[in-house]
Amino acid sequence: MQAVFTPADPDWDAKVRDSFARQGAMSTIGARLVHLEPGHAHIAVDYADAIAQQHGYVHGGVVGMIADSAGGYAGFSMMPPGASVLTVEYKMNLLAPADGQTILAKGRVLKPGRTLVVTQTDVFAHKNGQTRLCATMLQTLMTMAGKSDGRAAG
Amino acid sequence: MQAVFTPADPDWDAKVRDSFARQGAMSTIGARLVHLEPGHAHIAVDYADAIAQQHGYVHGGVVGMIADSAGGYAGFSMMPPGASVLTVEYKMNLLAPADGQTILAKGRVLKPGRTLVVTQTDVFAHKNGQTRLCATMLQTLMTMAGKSDGRAAG
Amino acid sequence: MQAVFTPADPDWDAKVRDSFARQGAMSTIGARLVHLEPGHAHIAVDYADAIAQQHGYVHGGVVGMIADSAGGYAGFSMMPPGASVLTVEYKMNLLAPADGQTILAKGRVLKPGRTLVVTQTDVFAHKNGQTRLCATMLQTLMTMAGKSDGRAAG
Amino acid sequence: MQAVFTPADPDWDAKVRDSFARQGAMSTIGARLVHLEPGHAHIAVDYADAIAQQHGYVHGGVVGMIADSAGGYAGFSMMPPGASVLTVEYKMNLLAPADGQTILAKGRVLKPGRTLVVTQTDVFAHKNGQTRLCATMLQTLMTMAGKSDGRAAG
Repeated sequence: MQAVFTPADPDWDAKVRDSFARQGAMSTIGARLVHLEPGHAHIAVDYADAIAQQHGYVHGGVVGMIADSAGGYAGFSMMPPGASVLTVEYKMNLLAPADGQTILAKGRVLKPGRTLVVTQTDVFAHKNGQTRLCATMLQTLMTMAGKSDGRAAG
Repeated sequence: MQAVFTPADPDWDAKVRDSFARQGAMSTIGARLVHLEPGHAHIAVDYADAIAQQHGYVHGGVVGMIADSAGGYAGFSMMPPGASVLTVEYKMNLLAPADGQTILAKGRVLKPGRTLVVTQTDVFAHKNGQTRLCATMLQTLMTMAGKSDGRAAG
Repeated sequence: MQAVFTPADPDWDAKVRDSFARQGAMSTIGARLVHLEPGHAHIAVDYADAIAQQHGYVHGGVVGMIADSAGGYAGFSMMPPGASVLTVEYKMNLLAPADGQTILAKGRVLKPGRTLVVTQTDVFAHKNGQTRLCATMLQTLMTMAGKSDGRAAG
Repeated sequence: MQAVFTPADPDWDAKVRDSFARQGAMSTIGARLVHLEPGHAHIAVDYADAIAQQHGYVHGGVVGMIADSAGGYAGFSMMPPGASVLTVEYKMNLLAPADGQTILAKGRVLKPGRTLVVTQTDVFAHKNGQTRLCATMLQTLMTMAGKSDGRAAG
């Protein structure tokens, strides 16, 4: 069952993609925004030594980064024009090693409140055609009304 | 008040530093292990565009990565010889933007159990000589007995 | 989609019901175990002033209690004979007031590990024939092997 | 080190005690508000079979209830006149069994924001003159401005 959401900002698609593109950290780890619809965002990263931990899997912190961003952009897609998004808190259970060629974080909105938005993101490891749930995250976001998402000029 | 811990592994210092050095992800984001004692580990990262989010602060995911690692190595320092460390879960409250020249995550062991170790990590932003608490994380680690921390040969 | 689990203890049904019956706290708040299958447990509580908070809804702490127990018994149903269950940690997002005649917590196992079991519990408020998601919890349980669930004699 | 807070409501003490007194759930489990100062609230409960789990300790859910309330009232003490408090989320690590004659939850404000307040609560078991940390909770509260804490009349 997948909730259907009506975005409050007609420009939701461009605004999310633009914000993602401005995140240096996402490009540093090689993360890609691979799917976007109102209330849903999927972010993928391919395995590389540069994002590994000491056992040769993708680092749990990188799993956390893409899960945090997938939930954050799922929520941001529902926010009104002129607002920016702030992560208040998140919690993640790591269920299996992030062992795969590609790690995919699928974020969705659980509760689209006016001030607070709650999301859940499941993270899957894709390895040799098999898919395995490797983490799940609950996250609280805050809508910062009247505060543009862009970096302050100058 | 700072708890005093007796490490179970005489080689705790070298084993933690060696494990940290093998994490490609830590070097990719420029993280440094700046302090280590039994039950305590501090990890710092300097601001760079490559680890920023869209507003020009250090990315919350990077804050999560260094907090996760600081807690993880605080716990690993207390684990017996031949064991490796696994993050079971963590949760983090982001209290202020990671706005500073240097972001410092100070991890400490709250409860050094035989199987499970619980840690707390406070993250501080250092900016122009001022220090501000910007996040706090609770984390559960598991001791993987008889499973070396190293990457499998070959 | 509902995962199908094979319990490790042929006596799983009686052992869960017996453990629930021995919890004084569950009877004090009027909680009932209303559904049980391997990897799933549902616990309900009816509204009463004795379990209310200051606005006349069911207390968030009571919501947490039945969610914790629903997840705990979902996990306990999968544990081997002779083991008891310990809650390691949980985190809960409160999405709406627990406003209803009956509050129902539906716990399910996400990951049935040998030592650790991770569960998720959704809590619903039933009011005048309507159902509303009011909370969701992620929980980590530990299997305490060779430690009976019963209270020590004497 | 204990933070010193200046309450925004001159009536903070009476308003917190009055709200606590109106919680049926707190009186049902025998919880007492034993200490209150701006940004800090301590809630205690004495052991009784009526709040036990199946091993004869105080139920983890009751530990969660008093921790949630201690954090909530620590935060509420800092909120402006006419506002009520809402728990957004919490997460708790259970570090040791709640084994004692008295269980004491000590809540304190970590971050007193205008809209969101973050708290941490440590829970201690007092047994035969010994004190042991048995749980710690991080919690996010929301200030509901212009929404009285009282139950709606009629």
